[in-house]
Amino acid sequence: MTRLNLSPADPKPVLVVGSVAFDNIITPYASGERILGGSASYAALATSYFAPARLVGVVGHDFDQAHVDRFQAHGIDTEGLQRDESGPTFFWKGKYHENFNRRDTIDIQLNVFETFRPELPQSYQDSPFLMLGNIAPGLQLHVLDALAESRPYTLADTIDLWIDIQKDELLKVVSRVDLFVINDSESEQLTGEKNIILAGEKLLELGTKAAIIKKGEHGAYLFHPEGRFALPAYPVTELRDPTGAGDSFAGALLGYLAATDDTSFNAIRKAMVYATATASMTVEDFSCDRLESAGAEAIQARFNEILSMTQL
Amino acid sequence: MTRLNLSPADPKPVLVVGSVAFDNIITPYASGERILGGSASYAALATSYFAPARLVGVVGHDFDQAHVDRFQAHGIDTEGLQRDESGPTFFWKGKYHENFNRRDTIDIQLNVFETFRPELPQSYQDSPFLMLGNIAPGLQLHVLDALAESRPYTLADTIDLWIDIQKDELLKVVSRVDLFVINDSESEQLTGEKNIILAGEKLLELGTKAAIIKKGEHGAYLFHPEGRFALPAYPVTELRDPTGAGDSFAGALLGYLAATDDTSFNAIRKAMVYATATASMTVEDFSCDRLESAGAEAIQARFNEILSMTQL
Repeated sequence: MTRLNLSPADPKPVLVVGSVAFDNIITPYASGERILGGSASYAALATSYFAPARLVGVVGHDFDQAHVDRFQAHGIDTEGLQRDESGPTFFWKGKYHENFNRRDTIDIQLNVFETFRPELPQSYQDSPFLMLGNIAPGLQLHVLDALAESRPYTLADTIDLWIDIQKDELLKVVSRVDLFVINDSESEQLTGEKNIILAGEKLLELGTKAAIIKKGEHGAYLFHPEGRFALPAYPVTELRDPTGAGDSFAGALLGYLAATDDTSFNAIRKAMVYATATASMTVEDFSCDRLESAGAEAIQARFNEILSMTQL
Repeated sequence: MTRLNLSPADPKPVLVVGSVAFDNIITPYASGERILGGSASYAALATSYFAPARLVGVVGHDFDQAHVDRFQAHGIDTEGLQRDESGPTFFWKGKYHENFNRRDTIDIQLNVFETFRPELPQSYQDSPFLMLGNIAPGLQLHVLDALAESRPYTLADTIDLWIDIQKDELLKVVSRVDLFVINDSESEQLTGEKNIILAGEKLLELGTKAAIIKKGEHGAYLFHPEGRFALPAYPVTELRDPTGAGDSFAGALLGYLAATDDTSFNAIRKAMVYATATASMTVEDFSCDRLESAGAEAIQARFNEILSMTQL
């Protein structure tokens, strides 16, 4: 496992909290059964190209050591990956429609995730960067409380489900993080603003220090006290499975900030380019397969390609 | 009328061919009746901020001198604006839906446009730049034939209607121009490719030397033998009437190329930023009102804002 060659060469560790899952994915062209998924899986693998990742999540009795090995092959610290022998791993079955813009959840089995409480090993307590991947906002708050003293630089992600059923907790999360990442339809749902600019400004009013609204194939938009930044997506021609694109985006983004130990406006803008490059790899194959096999060189090459495509 | 201060300061003239119309526009928030519209009106006004525009179109007996004065106040040469006393001016009535992404044509009266044949005054024959605004592809071919000898650098625009009813003629236009501009849904309709990259490559195969696919609020994409360029749109918060955005985009784009007498890949990329800036002005008010009143300074300021928003 080789990391990207960034300077300074003293990457800080990133604590990644989220779900680890088995997914069944159906697309118009192919499908995958019981493939590795979950927000923390994608995010930790993406982070690992930039900085050391520390994984916190839960798996069940059916989670093979082979899958743990996949994380470890990427240098991911799995001490915080809890194994709950009382049941199977979190399971999600989803189906994508013709243009990949819409997906339906066909089946969801929380299994060991139902009673999951993130526990942080002692060795994780000093993590200077924290990624709160998509899990219940109540659990995200629990982690924020556990790290209230060390106060890591924190990125949080979410999905529409939590706006529906745990909006108050989610708003608390937004008010306590450094960088809140959300997609465009969810930002409208959360803020009530259809216009992306007004939605972004509203997110800053809700307390996050900066916000990124993702527009899928149309790119991403950063709102920051020092300014705004708009970046087109990388135009993928070999789209096979969009699952995990957002988690990879967030994981790579925070990984770059940790790698350079820089959380400035400029660093976040550059991190968005690396995040876009990394996410564009993820969607070229099912599960984490392409993300895992891509390699640092291919991610750097795609970063360069995005720069040449978007910079005058 | 002041032009943008660009170097070299010897702008070449741009011949703009298209429709001049009266529009009735209904949006969810307001409406406008018998307001100045048409592809050539928007394009020529947009061009005029960058280079001298020469207008070719037709109006009917109901087209007041006051409207001609609006063109002339922008230094637009109206010698090629034919007046046909036999009927009223081309009329279009359209209605925009909630999110402005969809519009319906409620009424269309071709009037004097039905028998229009673009005639080029002798003084226009030497135009080194040609904008074929949205009109029937048959008429666009007629102009290309008339200028076959001088062979100006040519940008062509179109709409879905012509793909439906004059596809063969439109494909001939595509094969003969330097820069073909089309929106994303139309590019899919014309090329059969859903993926924007594949659609853009197909357009180049169809013969245009370069192509721009516009994605509305999501920006625009350039396909050129030397590379690709993706630019986000300017995020307008005061959207009032999207009519004419595409025509303004094309008119400003060609105006910038004429102003700098440079049609290189780099010039087209920079021109897209000016085009985006100019189009973002147009949609802030009904008809050509904001485009007319904006002034060169405001367009330059918005250009600068887009650069700072999109460039690292």
